[in-house]
Amino acid sequence: MSAIRPGDALHRLRKEAPLVHNITNYVAMNPMANILLAAGCSPAMVHAPEEAAEFAAIASALTVNIGTLSRPWLEAMLSAAEAARAHQRPWVLDPVAAGATRFRREAAARLLELQPTVIRGNASEILALGASAEVQAATEVKGRGVDSNNPVAAAAAVSVALAKRHNAVVAVTGPTDWVTDGRRAANIGNGHPLMPRVTALGCSLTGIIGGFLGAGCDPYEGTLAALAYYGAAGEWAAQDERWAVQGPGSFAVAFVDALALMSADQLERTARIESMARADPTGTQPAGTQKAE
Amino acid sequence: MSAIRPGDALHRLRKEAPLVHNITNYVAMNPMANILLAAGCSPAMVHAPEEAAEFAAIASALTVNIGTLSRPWLEAMLSAAEAARAHQRPWVLDPVAAGATRFRREAAARLLELQPTVIRGNASEILALGASAEVQAATEVKGRGVDSNNPVAAAAAVSVALAKRHNAVVAVTGPTDWVTDGRRAANIGNGHPLMPRVTALGCSLTGIIGGFLGAGCDPYEGTLAALAYYGAAGEWAAQDERWAVQGPGSFAVAFVDALALMSADQLERTARIESMARADPTGTQPAGTQKAE
Amino acid sequence: MSAIRPGDALHRLRKEAPLVHNITNYVAMNPMANILLAAGCSPAMVHAPEEAAEFAAIASALTVNIGTLSRPWLEAMLSAAEAARAHQRPWVLDPVAAGATRFRREAAARLLELQPTVIRGNASEILALGASAEVQAATEVKGRGVDSNNPVAAAAAVSVALAKRHNAVVAVTGPTDWVTDGRRAANIGNGHPLMPRVTALGCSLTGIIGGFLGAGCDPYEGTLAALAYYGAAGEWAAQDERWAVQGPGSFAVAFVDALALMSADQLERTARIESMARADPTGTQPAGTQKAE
Repeated sequence: MSAIRPGDALHRLRKEAPLVHNITNYVAMNPMANILLAAGCSPAMVHAPEEAAEFAAIASALTVNIGTLSRPWLEAMLSAAEAARAHQRPWVLDPVAAGATRFRREAAARLLELQPTVIRGNASEILALGASAEVQAATEVKGRGVDSNNPVAAAAAVSVALAKRHNAVVAVTGPTDWVTDGRRAANIGNGHPLMPRVTALGCSLTGIIGGFLGAGCDPYEGTLAALAYYGAAGEWAAQDERWAVQGPGSFAVAFVDALALMSADQLERTARIESMARADPTGTQPAGTQKAE
Repeated sequence: MSAIRPGDALHRLRKEAPLVHNITNYVAMNPMANILLAAGCSPAMVHAPEEAAEFAAIASALTVNIGTLSRPWLEAMLSAAEAARAHQRPWVLDPVAAGATRFRREAAARLLELQPTVIRGNASEILALGASAEVQAATEVKGRGVDSNNPVAAAAAVSVALAKRHNAVVAVTGPTDWVTDGRRAANIGNGHPLMPRVTALGCSLTGIIGGFLGAGCDPYEGTLAALAYYGAAGEWAAQDERWAVQGPGSFAVAFVDALALMSADQLERTARIESMARADPTGTQPAGTQKAE
Repeated sequence: MSAIRPGDALHRLRKEAPLVHNITNYVAMNPMANILLAAGCSPAMVHAPEEAAEFAAIASALTVNIGTLSRPWLEAMLSAAEAARAHQRPWVLDPVAAGATRFRREAAARLLELQPTVIRGNASEILALGASAEVQAATEVKGRGVDSNNPVAAAAAVSVALAKRHNAVVAVTGPTDWVTDGRRAANIGNGHPLMPRVTALGCSLTGIIGGFLGAGCDPYEGTLAALAYYGAAGEWAAQDERWAVQGPGSFAVAFVDALALMSADQLERTARIESMARADPTGTQPAGTQKAE
C-alpha cells in the first residue's frame, strides 16, 4: 500500500487545469462552477442530448448528478456516460436522493450499468444504490451490528459490495468520510459542521473528484485527495480569523477563498487520511494514520 | 383573537426541521435552498412530472413558483399541488409576474383552482390574480380611494376577496407586508431597503412560509411569523456591525447568517406585527400592536 | 469622433432602470440577476417558447446566451430575438462556447441571422463565429501576423469583419477588451485578474450591456461604457480595503457591492477607454486615450 500524497495530487490538478464536464442539478450549477474554478479546474455545464456525448469526449472528466432529474436530462446523462466510457474518460456518479422515488431508483440503476469510475453519495444514497438483490445478499452477513448512530459506517459494508460489483471507487461522505475500492478503504477526518449547512457542497465535491481524476490521478488516491482537500479547506475557512465567519452565508464565501488559496504543502500538513488494514465493513481497524508532522 | 407568538413558531420550525419540497424558478433555486437550510429546514427541489407528485406526498410542505415557467414544469406543478392537497399537505403559491403574459395568467388561474394554503406575491401579482370577474366585482366598491402611492395597500381589498374566494391566506409583500385570511388581517413592519436589491429573496420567502407550515404552524399565524422572521433578519443583517454590510452583495451573505443565528427570543423582541380590527381593505384601523417590550 | 462619456451613460442607466429580458444559462441566472439589480436595472428571466416573444416586446432590451443550450430553449431564443427586432428593441448575443460542438455552431449561426445589436464573447468564441467562408475571406489578408500571445488581438480582425457583415457592435473581452462597430474601435483597459476566477461574470456582463442599450444608449458607446463600468468595479472591489478581498469567493461579493456603489463621477475618473484611429485589426494605433485627470 503506497502512502497517499494529497499535496502531490493537488499540485497535479493545478498544473493540468482539467476541463471537467458536469451534468448536474440546477441548485448546484453555480456553486459547483465557482468551486471548480477556485480549485484550479475549468468547468463546463453541457446537458443537451444533441451535444452531451460530443462534449464528454472533449473533456478530461465527466460528472453526473441526478439532483433535479428529468427525462431529457437522463437521456443526456446516459449518452455522456457512454461517451466517457468509450473514450476512456473517468466519470463520477452522484446519485442524489437515489432512494426517494421510483424514477430516481431506475435512473440510478441505469447509470450504474455504465461503469462509473467513482460513486459519491451520503450514506442513505449509497444504501439505496445497494438495495438490489445481489448487493444486499453480499452485505447481509457483514451488515449487521454496524453502529446505526454512525450513518457513514452503516453504509460501509454496502459500499464495499458496490465497489466490487461495479469495479468502482465508492465514497460515502458525512461527518467522517469513507472511501473504498472494494479492496482498500480509508477514513478521511477533515471537514466542518458548517459544510452541510450550505447547499450543494456535496454536489460540488463530486465535481472536485472529477477534477482530480481529470488531472490524471489514480481513482482511489484522487478521491482521497479530493475529500481531504475539500474538508481541510472547510476547516480552514471556518476557523481562520481572516474570514471572520459568522454563519453559513459567510462560510460559503470563505470556503471558496480557502479552496483557491490552499497550497499543496498546507494540504499535506492538514490532511487526515486513515487507511484501513482492509476494506472491512465495520471500519474499526486502522492500518496506520497519515497525518501532519 | 389570539396573540401571535412568532418566536414560538420559529422554535417549532427549528425543532421539526420540515422537509420542504419546492418547484421554483432557476434564479431562486440556489439562494432558496441556502435560506431554507439557514432557517433550519430541509429543502428539496424536485420538478420532473415523473416524480413531483410522489415526492410531494413525502414532504411536509410544497411551494410552487412560476418565475421561469415552461409547459413541462407547469404539469409537474399541477400534479404536485394535487398530490399535496390529496395528502392534506399545506402548499404555497408564488405567482411571479402573473399578469405579464397570457401563459402566466392561465397558469396562475389553473394553480389557484388547486386550493393553495397560502398565496404570496407582491402587490401587482396579487392584483393580477384578482383580475377575474368575480373578485373584481367583490372589490369594486371597497377598492376605490386606496392610496395608490402604497402598492401594498392598493392590493389589500383584492387580497381579502381572493382569500375569501379561495379559502386561503394571502400575503402581499412590500415595504410593509400585509397578510389576511379574509377575516383577520395584519401588517408586518419588519424589513430593510436592501432586501429587494437581492434577487429571489421574495421567492425564497415563499419557501420559508412553506417551512413554517410544514412544521405544523397554523397557516395565518405561520405566515405572519415567517414574514416577521424574514424581515427582522434583514434588518439585523443590514445594521449589525459584525457584518459590515456595504451593499447588496455583502447584505445577501449577512442575511443568510442572520437567518441561521436569530433566536426565538430575538425574533419575539424584534417582530413588528400589527393586527387589524378586521380585514378592512383600507388597512388603517389597527386593533392593537404587538411589539417588543 | 465624439468623446465617450461612460459616467453619463451610467447616470442614464440608473435613471431609466430598464427592464432587461435575459434568456441565459443556468449557471449565470442568479449572479446575472443580482448584477443587473446592483447596477440599477430590472432583470427578468423568461424562456418558455409560449411567452418569450411576448415578453421581449415588453422589455427594453433582450440578451441571449447559449451557455446551457437545449432545443426548446433555442426555439425561445429565436422567437424572442425576432420579436425584439420587430419591435426595434436592442438585443445582445453571447455565443458561449460557440465552436465546441456542431449543435452550438448551428445555433450561433441561426441567431446571427437575426441581427443582434451587440455580440459579446471571448476571443475564441468570436473567432468561432467568424469561421464562415465570407468572414474568413475578409480576414485572410489582415488576419496574419497578429500576436497570438494576445488572444483578444488575435480576434480583432475577425471582429471587424463580423461587425461589418452583421451591422453589429462586436465586443471581444479578455485581459484588455476590444470593441468595434466595423468603422470605429477601442480598447478598454479596466478589469482585474480575479474576474475570470468567478463563474458567469462574462455572461453577466452581457446583461449589463443589455442594460445600457435598454436605457437608450447608442450601441457602440453603451457597450464601451458597460465594459469600462464593469472592469472599474472589478478593480475597485479587488483593491479597496473596505472589502478585504482574499480570493474569488470574497471578490464575487465585493464586486456586486462595487457595482451598486460606483457613482457616475467615479466611473468617469477611472474608465480607461482608448479609441483607435480606425478599426484596424492589429489594434496598435491609438487615436488618443481617454483617462482620468
